[in-house]
Amino acid sequence: MYDVIIVGLGPSGMTAAVYAARKKLKTLIVGKEYGGQAARTGEVENYMGFQYISGPELMRKFEEQVRQYPVEQIIDEVTGAGKREGGFYITTGKGCEYRSKTLIIAAGKQPRWLNVPGEKEFWGRGVSYCSVCDAPLFEKMKVAVIGGGNSAVEAAYDLTKIAEHVYVVSLEEWNCDPVVADKVRDAANLTKIVGSGVKSINGDKTVKSVTLSPVGKPSEESVLEVQGVFIEIGTVPATDIVRGFLELNEAGEVVVDCSCRTSVPGVFASGDVTSAPEKQVIVAAGEGAKAALGAFKYILENW
Amino acid sequence: MYDVIIVGLGPSGMTAAVYAARKKLKTLIVGKEYGGQAARTGEVENYMGFQYISGPELMRKFEEQVRQYPVEQIIDEVTGAGKREGGFYITTGKGCEYRSKTLIIAAGKQPRWLNVPGEKEFWGRGVSYCSVCDAPLFEKMKVAVIGGGNSAVEAAYDLTKIAEHVYVVSLEEWNCDPVVADKVRDAANLTKIVGSGVKSINGDKTVKSVTLSPVGKPSEESVLEVQGVFIEIGTVPATDIVRGFLELNEAGEVVVDCSCRTSVPGVFASGDVTSAPEKQVIVAAGEGAKAALGAFKYILENW
Repeated sequence: MYDVIIVGLGPSGMTAAVYAARKKLKTLIVGKEYGGQAARTGEVENYMGFQYISGPELMRKFEEQVRQYPVEQIIDEVTGAGKREGGFYITTGKGCEYRSKTLIIAAGKQPRWLNVPGEKEFWGRGVSYCSVCDAPLFEKMKVAVIGGGNSAVEAAYDLTKIAEHVYVVSLEEWNCDPVVADKVRDAANLTKIVGSGVKSINGDKTVKSVTLSPVGKPSEESVLEVQGVFIEIGTVPATDIVRGFLELNEAGEVVVDCSCRTSVPGVFASGDVTSAPEKQVIVAAGEGAKAALGAFKYILENW
Repeated sequence: MYDVIIVGLGPSGMTAAVYAARKKLKTLIVGKEYGGQAARTGEVENYMGFQYISGPELMRKFEEQVRQYPVEQIIDEVTGAGKREGGFYITTGKGCEYRSKTLIIAAGKQPRWLNVPGEKEFWGRGVSYCSVCDAPLFEKMKVAVIGGGNSAVEAAYDLTKIAEHVYVVSLEEWNCDPVVADKVRDAANLTKIVGSGVKSINGDKTVKSVTLSPVGKPSEESVLEVQGVFIEIGTVPATDIVRGFLELNEAGEVVVDCSCRTSVPGVFASGDVTSAPEKQVIVAAGEGAKAALGAFKYILENW
């Protein structure tokens, strides 16, 4: 039996692993891939200690730090979690079950779908949720970025350097940070389309166009010829595995107090999967430390 | 008038400064010196992104990052803070007053005094609160470290490599992290004295000895001949400037909610000065980000 099982290999889970190991807890960390959302982020300029670092590079540093400690690491999808006989368990996609005295849920967020015709059909054939991963595939092509937040405008900025032309389509005025908006201010190959939504993504073997409609006028249509569509309209918490087990809020996030305690004593949660404010790497890391130290105290008091 | 004044130049205040500047807030940060407690820490192994870095080096990286942004930085002691005419103000030791729409209190903690005869008299003449700063002065001498937590045992470890002999004196069994205790396990020149308190620090021009008494037996005395005394018995929040202005808890910390809001709307607090759990660099940095983003939202909604 482990002292603590950490679900999620993003910044919060990896920080929790380092803190748990430094308390000499028998620690297992499980997730699909190292780095979480942060590994899909291009430039990181607001993680303190690094004036500039790429998301994947920062996450490699986190991963190396975890590997300094005797933390068991398993790459597998967590499919369930719950309470059993005075302890907790998780189940995984490979059919394994692991048991522990405490759990830390740090499963993060996953990209939000647009839910329009053609989206699933063309996923991986022109439709992408990760500009950092896929932008180089669209050299000298026309692309659309859907969204107006930091991740959308950052994606658009990266794409202006690679694609022939970038259309940024958003329902409302951009709500990204001013410093992010500044980056694309002088981009000659960027067109900002505010007040339109995507009706469908069209193509044959791959994407050929997107159909747009102005907000409130669904019968009016226009067609943008593009070969790529980057969907950057936010993320949703990865809480399917704890639905019915832990209290969630209206946004589907795990409800936590300021010490990362969930509604079930012995189960902690940290990072973007939780109700804690601000989805930032430095915040997720800080919360991961709190969760691990909370698990340590829980074991001291209850085992 | 500034959008935000940040009180404190430690990890939390500097992170808040970067986040405020990235939101294009007109930002002033004021404090006595860069780095706070973290700059007085030797090894940092649990700040994610760096497997090993010294406290001063990590704080220099934070400082460089702040300097990338148009943040006004003033080295001065903050002597007061309060509300005036719809905004806030701070006063400083150099007699200046600065005004702002929001405040972030990130003043951190300061070392706790032992409150024994000789302590103030010999401060800087054998008595130290910072082993990282002062350990090299005690080469081949005998020293006492007072305390049994992480900072005390870390200090003792550093000193075993420099001093002739190190006595570690604590009232109770050590409560440091196991990995920290492991470091000194094989040190031949370290003596652990558990269950004794310091009655006085003695000397002439400089420290010559400390007088100890077993816990509960104040009439029994023993004398340790040492030339240095490192007092590492924890810290107290630097909340004198906000007493009567913000709600404090029994420990003297500024009471905050999970979003770093204090009892006064428009005033935020973050890091070791607050009631938030766990005094760790990574936690303080995460809370600083929350405080700055909170101040940004407050200004949007109220100005």
